[in-house]
Amino acid sequence: MNMPVMNAPAAPPATDPLDSLFDAMFKPMDALGVYARTGAYESVVEALAAFISARRDEGTEVFRFPPVMSRAHLERHGYLKSFPNLLGCVSCLEGSETEIRGYADRHLNGGDWTEGLETADLVLTPAACYPVYPIAAARGPVPEAGYRFDVACDCFRREPSRHLDRLQSFRMREYVRIGTPEQIVAFRESWIKTATAMADELGLTYTVETASDPFFGRLGQIMAFSQLEQALKFELLIPLRGAAAGTACMSFNYHREHFGTTWGLHLADGEPAHTGCVAFGMDRLAVAMFATHGAALADWPAAIRAALKL
Amino acid sequence: MNMPVMNAPAAPPATDPLDSLFDAMFKPMDALGVYARTGAYESVVEALAAFISARRDEGTEVFRFPPVMSRAHLERHGYLKSFPNLLGCVSCLEGSETEIRGYADRHLNGGDWTEGLETADLVLTPAACYPVYPIAAARGPVPEAGYRFDVACDCFRREPSRHLDRLQSFRMREYVRIGTPEQIVAFRESWIKTATAMADELGLTYTVETASDPFFGRLGQIMAFSQLEQALKFELLIPLRGAAAGTACMSFNYHREHFGTTWGLHLADGEPAHTGCVAFGMDRLAVAMFATHGAALADWPAAIRAALKL
Repeated sequence: MNMPVMNAPAAPPATDPLDSLFDAMFKPMDALGVYARTGAYESVVEALAAFISARRDEGTEVFRFPPVMSRAHLERHGYLKSFPNLLGCVSCLEGSETEIRGYADRHLNGGDWTEGLETADLVLTPAACYPVYPIAAARGPVPEAGYRFDVACDCFRREPSRHLDRLQSFRMREYVRIGTPEQIVAFRESWIKTATAMADELGLTYTVETASDPFFGRLGQIMAFSQLEQALKFELLIPLRGAAAGTACMSFNYHREHFGTTWGLHLADGEPAHTGCVAFGMDRLAVAMFATHGAALADWPAAIRAALKL
Repeated sequence: MNMPVMNAPAAPPATDPLDSLFDAMFKPMDALGVYARTGAYESVVEALAAFISARRDEGTEVFRFPPVMSRAHLERHGYLKSFPNLLGCVSCLEGSETEIRGYADRHLNGGDWTEGLETADLVLTPAACYPVYPIAAARGPVPEAGYRFDVACDCFRREPSRHLDRLQSFRMREYVRIGTPEQIVAFRESWIKTATAMADELGLTYTVETASDPFFGRLGQIMAFSQLEQALKFELLIPLRGAAAGTACMSFNYHREHFGTTWGLHLADGEPAHTGCVAFGMDRLAVAMFATHGAALADWPAAIRAALKL
């Protein structure tokens, strides 16, 4: 009989080739996509960061952002329209000592203390470049040469997954360009060349393809189609679980005037500035290095170790 | 007449000597205690991190933690009893596409979309060592030599402040010792000596004093008194705004069996392990360096620059 059996054990999950690398890279922290990072893994992340810094364009200004940012800023960015499902807000117990103690004590008594939480004015930063646009806008019109920024941030996106190339908390590094459309297009073309040469030097297998952001819902499908049609986003994909599906480890983005309009970021002639960025998924690149070269750094090819000064 | 005048402008805030350093270290991000970090500031944080790494004890295992951790773990740590007012929880929009879009659209219509947020299984990590105890406990009984860990994390505590030495999002680095009471006491004594020598080398003025954690409320005052009485916590205080009030930039902590009992972390004889840590407030130390040596790294004393390889 082929009737379903109640309470039968679930089928074991399909094996993922990345899983065998878990212990070399991570320790569990009792949450999907949130892992402690081993010293070996972290040394690769740090080496990749230095490898990227060494290729920084002249005249680039460095900022590092904390893992939280203003909720009002993220709302203004349009994040609720595009990715409301991925957003992490900060919420806290506010009020008098008696009120806070009252909620906290519910936990001690086995109750639900989280009902007392109030949404704070902060969110978890979902992308490393978001905080840089208001900083640039505060300076007045964009100078003729435009801006080049080097930014990095611990980012959060609410997509719990057992796949090690999809973390909820992950590091993103970006080079951001602000200026005329011509400046942005030239920047993106130059960085696609540089970044693919970097991937070659790191011994990574990849393709570069047009792509779209994971805009939310049915409305999002239209936004994604438009993005694809205009070729606004390219991704460097690395096949981490067989050749069929590549994992996006870098992206090359042209935002057109989106952030310029949002933040009143203007060129000298009053036109909204255009912006673009190249983004490096630091954790995905590190995972790709382990997946490609093996769990033990000591066994990596000498040329790769030399490239990373490991 | 000395009657109060309604709607009179508030008195200007008292000047804070750290404020003049803001532009050298930070850019505003529209939230108190949440700042973009300049390249110069970040180079000091990185140099301090390397300075601390160079003094790592033999046999120390490295972990780096993401800025979020399991809410269940933090609840088990007793954080709701001790510091419920400082906790930052992650909350998200969950549910079907229609539900999430419904809440997100409230924002577009000028309404309060945050009513749709649900508390997630994650919190913002409030201290760098919390995640290491369950990792150690999962290994079984503590070996005779005990454990030494090097941990770091972007931490969050909900205490918005205009003072630049009290950030809501800040970096903490810790050396953690797990073992017998004798091992912990020896570790702490050794690190008070090492850390004060480090502060000397960095040209910092400081005192080391017994201290207590900012336990919440009236019950907290009793816990703080007990902590002081047992001399469980020492702080290295640096006078950042005049000699009267020092800012805690490092701390030397003996937790006794608190984490051992909480996490079932036992010695071979079945007794709960004792734990201790030395914690470096990376952002406070960086601010202290700017406050002591000035806004321009190029003008810092040559010996200080040499010590930090800046």
